[in-house]
Amino acid sequence: MELQGSFHVYDTTLRDGAQQEGLNLTVADKLTIAKQLDGLGVGYIEGGWPGANPRDTEFFRRAADELDLRHAKLAAFGATRRAGVRAADDPLVAALRDSGASVVTLVAKSHDRHVELALRTTLEENLAMVRDTVSHLRDEGQTVFLDAEHFFDGYRANRAYALEVLRTAYDAGAEVVALCDTNGGMLPSWVGDVVHDVVSTGVRVGIHCHNDTGCAVANTLTAVDAGATHVQGTINGYGERTGNADLVSVVANLELKLDKRVLPQGLLRDATRIAHAVAEVTNVPPASRQPYVGTSAFAHKAGLHASAIKVDPDLYQHMDPIGVGNDMRLLVSDMAGRATIELKGRELGFDLSGDRELVTRVTERVKEMEARGHSFEAADASFELLLIEEVEGVRPSYFDIESWRVITDSSPDGEAVSEATVKLRAEGVRYVVTGEGNGPVNALDAALRSAIEQAFPEVAKFELIDYKVRILDPSLPGGHGTDAITRVLIETSDGESTWVTVGLGANVIEASWDALIDGLTFGLRKHHRQEGDRG
Amino acid sequence: MELQGSFHVYDTTLRDGAQQEGLNLTVADKLTIAKQLDGLGVGYIEGGWPGANPRDTEFFRRAADELDLRHAKLAAFGATRRAGVRAADDPLVAALRDSGASVVTLVAKSHDRHVELALRTTLEENLAMVRDTVSHLRDEGQTVFLDAEHFFDGYRANRAYALEVLRTAYDAGAEVVALCDTNGGMLPSWVGDVVHDVVSTGVRVGIHCHNDTGCAVANTLTAVDAGATHVQGTINGYGERTGNADLVSVVANLELKLDKRVLPQGLLRDATRIAHAVAEVTNVPPASRQPYVGTSAFAHKAGLHASAIKVDPDLYQHMDPIGVGNDMRLLVSDMAGRATIELKGRELGFDLSGDRELVTRVTERVKEMEARGHSFEAADASFELLLIEEVEGVRPSYFDIESWRVITDSSPDGEAVSEATVKLRAEGVRYVVTGEGNGPVNALDAALRSAIEQAFPEVAKFELIDYKVRILDPSLPGGHGTDAITRVLIETSDGESTWVTVGLGANVIEASWDALIDGLTFGLRKHHRQEGDRG
Repeated sequence: MELQGSFHVYDTTLRDGAQQEGLNLTVADKLTIAKQLDGLGVGYIEGGWPGANPRDTEFFRRAADELDLRHAKLAAFGATRRAGVRAADDPLVAALRDSGASVVTLVAKSHDRHVELALRTTLEENLAMVRDTVSHLRDEGQTVFLDAEHFFDGYRANRAYALEVLRTAYDAGAEVVALCDTNGGMLPSWVGDVVHDVVSTGVRVGIHCHNDTGCAVANTLTAVDAGATHVQGTINGYGERTGNADLVSVVANLELKLDKRVLPQGLLRDATRIAHAVAEVTNVPPASRQPYVGTSAFAHKAGLHASAIKVDPDLYQHMDPIGVGNDMRLLVSDMAGRATIELKGRELGFDLSGDRELVTRVTERVKEMEARGHSFEAADASFELLLIEEVEGVRPSYFDIESWRVITDSSPDGEAVSEATVKLRAEGVRYVVTGEGNGPVNALDAALRSAIEQAFPEVAKFELIDYKVRILDPSLPGGHGTDAITRVLIETSDGESTWVTVGLGANVIEASWDALIDGLTFGLRKHHRQEGDRG
Repeated sequence: MELQGSFHVYDTTLRDGAQQEGLNLTVADKLTIAKQLDGLGVGYIEGGWPGANPRDTEFFRRAADELDLRHAKLAAFGATRRAGVRAADDPLVAALRDSGASVVTLVAKSHDRHVELALRTTLEENLAMVRDTVSHLRDEGQTVFLDAEHFFDGYRANRAYALEVLRTAYDAGAEVVALCDTNGGMLPSWVGDVVHDVVSTGVRVGIHCHNDTGCAVANTLTAVDAGATHVQGTINGYGERTGNADLVSVVANLELKLDKRVLPQGLLRDATRIAHAVAEVTNVPPASRQPYVGTSAFAHKAGLHASAIKVDPDLYQHMDPIGVGNDMRLLVSDMAGRATIELKGRELGFDLSGDRELVTRVTERVKEMEARGHSFEAADASFELLLIEEVEGVRPSYFDIESWRVITDSSPDGEAVSEATVKLRAEGVRYVVTGEGNGPVNALDAALRSAIEQAFPEVAKFELIDYKVRILDPSLPGGHGTDAITRVLIETSDGESTWVTVGLGANVIEASWDALIDGLTFGLRKHHRQEGDRG
């Protein structure tokens, strides 16, 4: 609570973030995301624009019943009253007043040209609209923040007027005036100068940045450095065009780099989990290179550095990834030395340090396979199967394949059809099954799983969630064009976790088949071990 | 050339960018990317580490023959000599000297702890290694840049030593000392202070940033503001962990925001096309929210703003997107604008400017097809076929397909075999042919060509030289996993030139088939026209 007073972390994922192309949130999605944001400990969650948008009205209605926020307050977003009416009589203002949110964030024009061209009113009337709406909502007991739209461009065009809008809001009782770089064209040095100037006028300043120059995070930090005490952003940097400032990066930089406490103690350690959980809801694939929380953010192609990483991992990372709930990962690559293999084994729960010969054997085998085009970097599950094979002397196996075949036929209506037949033995029984699909691998996957499922019902939960094909270097054995070696990566899920397997071959179908088999085998082993643990 | 002197735009996509997880470039890929980078007008292209990596050695060998760079110079990356040997006797230094590159970028340790723990030598010997290697290569006639690894962390740990490394390199003849934020943990204000201090020692400073705090672009700009005159980065921000500074964002900010001319006049207008073309080669899906060049970077969910945008689009965008070759888009709608289609037509030899209706028809069709996942950006030949179809009223066709089928069978020795049957009519004759291959597309290609060749002998010269598969964004229609929509790009050669065609479908075989048919059709038309010209 104290943090809400001295420094505001204000999330606008549910409103400005939802402007992102292809992002479409239901009310249920928004409620789920709000809980996650509260778990991260943000001070304010902007839920949407009640009154302007039926879905947002519904969100605030349901939030009042269903959300039990521990850290955050809900904010309703909306515009100042229309020109020529009283604030109390404007139905859109009424929707804000009646939203049940304790905070209202009012967007106001602060760029003179926008007042004239977009709002089509006078500069004077715009000031009156700001004054009246802020006072009215304050009188009705709500906290009011002002979002000064296009502020930075407006400041350049007409500094006096832009500042007058802020002053008007502040004098009418707005607690914070947030300066919005609505078009996103600012650079840090410019933001710093403007914020510094505004802070010196005595208002409390917030900052709202977009990433059009690739500087949203830096612009936000610079504003804080210049005196802003309220930062707006979105989780995963969602937002229109290039997105808003990524709130996790902003907060992590403030807490971990600048020693500024802006979230309740310890909650930043959930950032990676929360960022990924929100990505599940939005159905926007998480960016692996996202700062702090990306799956690659602490991944190293170790090679040359592995021995030094063993001595002191901090030599090769800018912070301990546990601070944001992420992990260091060593990528097994063709430069992999023994040290990498040992570290990787440890990561997967195998202590190899006592067995030099084993480490040598695994290292040699990985090098040899990667030289042929395998890539264990992205395929931890295939690497783990290889490791188990070397440690236990035998590769895990739950079924024996007798043969398979897949046929793809043109069809007169142009939609080709694939049909696969698989023959295999599992748990002593022989299965001959056929599967159809809209592609050869899809058909093989269907056939394979319908057989295995009869022996191992847990396979019903497995789902193939990603499939990647890469045609490899023509300089590798195999020539070029459709003659080349193909690498397939398959990601499988059991609803709890996911794992990636790799297959390689001159024939893309064969490469896919190998990755499918590894994927099922890895999943079955995981489930058998969990059963074992319970038994 | 003048730009190379006063300000360096130094690209390290092919070396540091290639450290990105999952990115694996062949020599052919690297050559293609180098041509694109040269088209953007960068001053330097770091090609890799010859001597340390056979693929990079091969790259420099082939680059000498095959690359005809108009703007850029090639730089070879490598380390200072090993401890305890003469630079002239170190085989890795020899590989740099013999690479044929006019520039060598030497990486050196500038952090005392790294010298001791990773390099395992003394601080003194490290300085000698820097001095000897720089002088040796300078004496042999190469320009030398120094990459001071872990510089910012080293400066904090031991400022005097970090500066001494720079001074040693500079005095030995290095033209630039690039300060590397190797672990990527810096913020703009820190970078500014350190660069300012280093510049004041009289050396020429470069900057090399990673994006671990989300500030790589801003850190780079801040360094330039503090006096750096050499910026390193990668296209699309590729790189290890969270990536390197995105060179396009850096350059666009310098040119368009700070009025600093750093590329040859006009070339920044190709940035969007080049960024996407490189993404096709790396097979890393382009980030739609990428600043400046992302497909969403100038996309507006118009709604409220549509009428104001019509009055003055500059009210709602931070710059004119044409400056980077991108387009404003109003959502929901257009992928390609009319202007693009007209320009593209002109590029292919069709003057469409007089036929508004035709341009509208083509634009609509391209939009509709791209919305489904087609990509004409990389597939000029498919676009040209579409254009001919609209201009001439009928799509070029030299044969009629009756049906096709392809079977892939497992085999006991593990090498799956594919067999295709194709039935078609050409020049009045019906052909039923069978082809074998080490994959289904290879088999279809073999069968198809053995039939067509009988009617059109020139097909014997055609060769399929590249084949790329991309599983499209699950957010597009088609879902995920092997269920998703697949896009296939095929490059065909006739020994004189090459052309790229695209196919799309739920079934990868069908998508490949469509691209094969387009590839043959385009080639046949080209040869028939040439015959016509001669006749």
